[in-house]
Amino acid sequence: MKFKADRATLLRALAHIQSVAEKRNTIPILANVLLSAEDGLLRLTATDMEIAVVENIAAETARPGATTAPAAVLYDIVRKLPDGSVVELDHAGTDAPLTLRAGKYATSLNVLPVDDFPSMVAGDLPFAFTIAASVLRGLIDRTRFAISTEETRYYLNGIYLHVADLETGPMLRAVATDGHRLARVEADVPVGAEGMPGVIIPRKTIHELRKLLDEGSTDIEVNVSDTRIQFRCGPILLTSKLIDGTFPEYERVIPKGNDRILRVGKRDFADAVGRVAAISQERSRPVKLSVMPNLLTLSAVSPDQGMAKEELDENSVAYDAAPIEIGFQARYLNDITDQIETEVEFAFADNAAPTLVRDTNTPSALYVLMPMRV
Amino acid sequence: MKFKADRATLLRALAHIQSVAEKRNTIPILANVLLSAEDGLLRLTATDMEIAVVENIAAETARPGATTAPAAVLYDIVRKLPDGSVVELDHAGTDAPLTLRAGKYATSLNVLPVDDFPSMVAGDLPFAFTIAASVLRGLIDRTRFAISTEETRYYLNGIYLHVADLETGPMLRAVATDGHRLARVEADVPVGAEGMPGVIIPRKTIHELRKLLDEGSTDIEVNVSDTRIQFRCGPILLTSKLIDGTFPEYERVIPKGNDRILRVGKRDFADAVGRVAAISQERSRPVKLSVMPNLLTLSAVSPDQGMAKEELDENSVAYDAAPIEIGFQARYLNDITDQIETEVEFAFADNAAPTLVRDTNTPSALYVLMPMRV
Repeated sequence: MKFKADRATLLRALAHIQSVAEKRNTIPILANVLLSAEDGLLRLTATDMEIAVVENIAAETARPGATTAPAAVLYDIVRKLPDGSVVELDHAGTDAPLTLRAGKYATSLNVLPVDDFPSMVAGDLPFAFTIAASVLRGLIDRTRFAISTEETRYYLNGIYLHVADLETGPMLRAVATDGHRLARVEADVPVGAEGMPGVIIPRKTIHELRKLLDEGSTDIEVNVSDTRIQFRCGPILLTSKLIDGTFPEYERVIPKGNDRILRVGKRDFADAVGRVAAISQERSRPVKLSVMPNLLTLSAVSPDQGMAKEELDENSVAYDAAPIEIGFQARYLNDITDQIETEVEFAFADNAAPTLVRDTNTPSALYVLMPMRV
Repeated sequence: MKFKADRATLLRALAHIQSVAEKRNTIPILANVLLSAEDGLLRLTATDMEIAVVENIAAETARPGATTAPAAVLYDIVRKLPDGSVVELDHAGTDAPLTLRAGKYATSLNVLPVDDFPSMVAGDLPFAFTIAASVLRGLIDRTRFAISTEETRYYLNGIYLHVADLETGPMLRAVATDGHRLARVEADVPVGAEGMPGVIIPRKTIHELRKLLDEGSTDIEVNVSDTRIQFRCGPILLTSKLIDGTFPEYERVIPKGNDRILRVGKRDFADAVGRVAAISQERSRPVKLSVMPNLLTLSAVSPDQGMAKEELDENSVAYDAAPIEIGFQARYLNDITDQIETEVEFAFADNAAPTLVRDTNTPSALYVLMPMRV
């Protein structure tokens, strides 16, 4: 294998690749990137056995072939080469090291056999559809903060993507929950996704996919089976195993009759939560909302430090139901308001029941938040 | 005590203060800031018993008085208040909480008695001089990376500032060493510093002082005794204990007869060190310099990953002595080149003896580096 590639192109591909490659050294080959040079093309592959990323870039191939080399080291080296460099990679075959040359810099990297590199078989992916990158970003951003990190409830460690049959017709839904809060976002069902199974996409896959969505592809091709999902973002193909579990019947958690509606300006509310919570250094800082007609008082108490409160009046608050006092974790409130544009809508039942939160500008997104005793 | 202060002014002072206040909660009062309001003036004080910072800011004082409140919480709250706020602080006396109001935000913070707040007595400081902030910055930046972190050699945990009597006359010198490398920087002796004792300024003091030097005071007033040092930077007074120990006779470590002189462009050299060291993930990555007339080859070997090398030729290298091969820790080389402007000068004896490093543009700075076996 021998080829030349432009440093910037190679660096961008290695950046995608190296974050998928396994950092822990338990299985050395998983720390490597598989490089395969064909005519005019270099294919880079990394996998941690759960996710595989394959990317094709342009390369001037002098001799086709393939080898595997440490992804992190290769990335670090290419990153440190001068901008505008042409990088030449040369592998004489089998056990010979991979040499990399750029100007007067040369390195020879130990390789591992291509045959040892695990190939991730996607299998038959019967459902195929195309979704706008901006829509997929919206589904991910508005739900991923609610993904559970509790390993025992592994079926909550991802985003549940599925088609829901509603009275108004089918909708594509992304849902995540950790038991304390739930996020549910809807989009139109793309052509071809109608019969797809509900799938739970793991957190790491979501994280890697989300990075790729910032890189300018406008349409993402998605292929799905019961056990695998594949995203094509321009020259990059991301394949992932799905979480093998049953997502809970989340609709049962979403309250129906909450009729005490509070509307509050997002900026004012989020800032007030931050200031009031500043009194306490605890991670699960509770903030109490005392809601009266057109008046919201936020308050927090810390036995060590003291107390804090802030009033928001009719300039930013609209409320005309019976007064209520209810507590939430400051961090959970902020996670939701981070996704809300200008106005937050709370729908309360009572101070022990789940509360609904919405963005008045984005009816497709809905959040459920469990109160805390305050 | 009752006063109003401008949020931006209060925030800037609290930023200085809170980094000195003790974060660990072993002695609660040390986590507090002492606030004393006089006519038109608020004085803020924090101390960890080693360092004290006192800062005066303008305040509209309605009732003079003093109290102490948690520095980190107060800083966090004031940081989160809207820009342009006027902050009112009110303390009714003794055990009453400190209330802070800004717009519709209010907090009441638990206080601790002023009498419990330790006062740091500077004592008599017989030596007084003024030094330009830019000169003091130069002394600190070019030496502090070499300060030892080994607590057993506590007398190396700071910068040794002293007046050296040289053949050419006295010079003010800053010196730091951790046994592997040494940095020595000289400046003219300021008027008033002639007879001052040699003092070892602790690392944390250096760190706090260095932040203050970026804030626009052009002249720094320094007062010194055997046991204390005080820096006045505009409205801020930093007082610190000194390290009670004897700094080693560092001149004996500085080689005299090193006559194999290598000059190399700083940017090319630093980049090549980074690229070559990228082959190894070890923290103490050794880089070998193979020096021949007008040719410098940098190389590194990693048993796991492979090897890397880069050649720098007469375009960036000047050398006409006998060839030498010598190894250094990449990180130590970078720490020094970070302080060098355009050209690095190495003076070698042999590959086991200390090497001298200089900045050809800054003759007042000198570095000594111990080689590693490679």
